[in-house]
Parts: sequence; structure tokens; C-alpha cells
Amino acid sequence: MSTASYKGQKYAEGKSVQVNDILVVEESLKITINNTPFTITMRTPGSENELVRGLLFSENVCSDIETNPIITVKEKNEKGFVTSVDVTIPKEKVGKGMEISRSIVSVSSCGICGKSELETISNDSKKLVIQEKLAPELVGKMFEQMSSAQNTFKQSGGSHAAAAFTIDGKMLTIQEDIGRHNAVDKVIGSLLFQKQLHHAKCMVVSGRISYEIVNKCYAAGIPFLAAVSAPSSMAVDLSERLGITLMAFCRERKFTTYSNIKNIK
Amino acid sequence: MSTASYKGQKYAEGKSVQVNDILVVEESLKITINNTPFTITMRTPGSENELVRGLLFSENVCSDIETNPIITVKEKNEKGFVTSVDVTIPKEKVGKGMEISRSIVSVSSCGICGKSELETISNDSKKLVIQEKLAPELVGKMFEQMSSAQNTFKQSGGSHAAAAFTIDGKMLTIQEDIGRHNAVDKVIGSLLFQKQLHHAKCMVVSGRISYEIVNKCYAAGIPFLAAVSAPSSMAVDLSERLGITLMAFCRERKFTTYSNIKNIK
Repeated sequence: MSTASYKGQKYAEGKSVQVNDILVVEESLKITINNTPFTITMRTPGSENELVRGLLFSENVCSDIETNPIITVKEKNEKGFVTSVDVTIPKEKVGKGMEISRSIVSVSSCGICGKSELETISNDSKKLVIQEKLAPELVGKMFEQMSSAQNTFKQSGGSHAAAAFTIDGKMLTIQEDIGRHNAVDKVIGSLLFQKQLHHAKCMVVSGRISYEIVNKCYAAGIPFLAAVSAPSSMAVDLSERLGITLMAFCRERKFTTYSNIKNIK
Repeated sequence: MSTASYKGQKYAEGKSVQVNDILVVEESLKITINNTPFTITMRTPGSENELVRGLLFSENVCSDIETNPIITVKEKNEKGFVTSVDVTIPKEKVGKGMEISRSIVSVSSCGICGKSELETISNDSKKLVIQEKLAPELVGKMFEQMSSAQNTFKQSGGSHAAAAFTIDGKMLTIQEDIGRHNAVDKVIGSLLFQKQLHHAKCMVVSGRISYEIVNKCYAAGIPFLAAVSAPSSMAVDLSERLGITLMAFCRERKFTTYSNIKNIK
């Protein structure tokens, strides 16, 4: 339930083989409190009651230890994952977190805090169309270029990086930030200021790929996305649908492609 | 500007020494659009214009490539970091992202999307008081217990974990999720359901520690927080202020404490 099997194409030393990899599942969960919208969060299914109880406690929506809110499943999706719950809390026990929460602050590890519905992000979206395929031998070289420019990471070990490349593997910009989504936003902003966005064909990121990074690449029209670490199930599903070629586990000149594999040369 | 030097106490093989470590800086940035609040984001200072331009582009607030919004610094803090900017965009160029954004969705990598002001979180907060100090030799053992129970990570390589322990190093619960803040919320929820929250004295997390994890521990009254990877500057500052002993780089039975060091035996 917390993982799913995905087909991928693994590239190493000039050859490629089909693999079946286990990826962590990422799904949305809509939470309403006494039928009033509170938040939609992206999470790994399982322990929904624990997640909701802990979230409401730590965000001061229901911080009375003795009050056990009633959590009711409202919707499941076609895969059987819970996608919506309502929480019944006695009115006098609803804390001030209900009012101040989720209005305008996002955090360094957050990408897209605040869309009102996930559907608004991607359902009416057309696939990105590529003009040129990517040569697999460039992937490792792009990571080497990014890595050698990660100055904040080299000092602190605590920052993410993102970099944009042309289809020929030329680095256009590299940015660092404690938030991986911020690093991607800085890259897109830098490309816009340089009037280079149309040359950017590959986004390379440190860390993992979840939902929000795929969305940002799509918004920027960048059809190749490569990460050092693992992708989530939703990152792969969304990439496939949006025409993005997602590459993950890009290490030591190996990588695995999970979507739109045909766009690799 | 993107990093800062912090004093720490490094524990290894039964001894401890004072060290100076470079940590990545995490600071808040408030963004208003035509003087209307849009969001507050936690980020690493530097490339503010690129961050704001890219964020507004990828969230469809200003997705016209030709329109260069005017970004004006409104406030800096005492360290000289920009903390507030206003963005001037011609009214007719403001996209629908302005309305739908930042209202109720958070993402898997996000912790506290949506507080209206950072000040509401912690300024009136009292320090946590400890009853008992933590024995340093337990830290490595707690990570070993958590690690051996990370089943989703073992399969997928793509999930975070969090676990709660007693002051004697007994594991009370372990939870996994694609979002590190979700894993922490699941732990807190599980402790509440088990009526064990008052026994939980140490939160152990995979990955890094930023602002929101410290806040969640504080809300749960857990005075020790340990992570495999690096902390942010703000995580350390906030931990110091809230009475939390923050331990990071917990690997191979070594770790470094950056705040409230006196609470280690």
C-alpha cells in the first residue's frame, strides 16, 4: 500500500535493460474539519488516522490530548487509496490553528502549498512535445557539472540544487536552496531573466522527485527531468501524462527512466 | 550569505569536542503581489529575484514570458537578509494562480503550509523543560532501531521515517512517509492514540531538519530531536529558543549537538 511496482529502463555503460522497481506511493488526501475545507496534503497512504490526528495536534487545530476527533473516510480512489476524510471535532475544541493555518505561509521543504484543488493543476494539460531526443551518455555528465558547482552543499551538506541544461548538455544555470522546489523556481527565474527558457530542455535536481517538481518543469516547458534519488509514484504517473521523461537514481553514470522512455536516444 | 557558522559539540566514541560547523541558512521571505499578501516561504537567502520570478511563473501568477515584474525589497532583518518583497505586475497580467494558490493544498515535502505569519508560531512560546538528561550512547542505538524498521525505505529508497523514543531509548512508534513532516505527524498521532505522548522524549528523523520539524516537536512537547542529516540555521536557532536539544549528522554512532547542549549527560 505504501509502495508500488513500476517498469523502468535502466541505462548503464552504454546498454539498457528493462527493470521492475518498487517506488514509494504519493497520493493526495483532502482533510475537512466539520465539513469545512482545511487542507489537501500529498502523502504516502497508510496510517491516515495517525497522520490526521498528529497534523491537527501539531498545528493547533485539535491540541486537546483528551479529545479524540472522529475521523470518517469520505472518498477512496480507483486504486483503493483514501483520498478524502472529514474530521468531527466539538466546536469548542477547535483551536485557532483552524483559522490561521494554511492561508499564506509555505516552508522551505514545500513546493506548491496552496492550490485549492489538485485538478486545477494538471487535468486540462497538453503533453509537452519534444524536438530532439536526449543522448543517455549526457545524463552523468550533467550531474557532474551540477555537482562541481554546488558550493553551498559542499560547505553545509544541507542544501538542494537544481540546474538547467540544453539538449546538448550545456549548463545554463545552477541554483541552491534548502528547499528543492525553491532551487527549481530559482532556476526557472534565472532562465527567464537570461531569456534562455526556450533553450532549457533538461532539469537536473539533487534529492528525490515528487509531484510538485514535475509540475514546475511542466509549467516551464522542460521535457526532461533527472534526479539523484528516487521518484514517487505520482511523479512518474504525472510525468507520463504530461510528456516528461523522468530519470531517477542518476548515480555513477547509471540511471533509470520511468516515463516517456522513447524520448531517450 | 547562504551559509553560517555554528558552534556544536561533536560526540564520538565516548568523547566530545567543540566544533564549528557551516550550516545552510533558512530564512522566511514574505511575498506580496501589488501589495496583496501572496505567500510566506522559507528559503535560503540569495537569488531572491530569481526565486520570486520563477515561483510566480511556475504557479501561474505571472506566466507571461515577456512581462518582467518589478520586484521591490520591502524589509530586511537584523542579519541583513531580505525578509519581504513586493512584486508589481500589471493587473491584466496577473494569472489565475493568484486566486487559487496557497489556499488549502500542501504537498508531500511540505510541513506547515499556511500559517498566516511566522510570529504566530513561536514568539510567545515557553521553553520546554526536561526532567532527565539524555545519555549520548543511546543516540546511535535509537537510529539503529529506526533503521531496521524502515520497510518502505528498504523497498523504495524514496521515503522518510520518524520514530519516537523514551528517555531510556525504547522505541514507542515508527512511521514512514514521502514527506518528512507527515512522518512526524504520524508519529505524534500514533502516540496520542496509544496515550503515550507523555513518555516520548526523543524524536528521531531520517533526512534533514528544518524549521517545521522543530515546531512539530515543540507542539508535541518532545525535548530531544535527532536527525541523520544536516540542520538548517533556523532549526538550530529555534531549537535553542524553545528548549529543544537538536542533534544532527547522527551516523555511525557519532553526532553533533547544536542547541541546549547541557541536556546531554
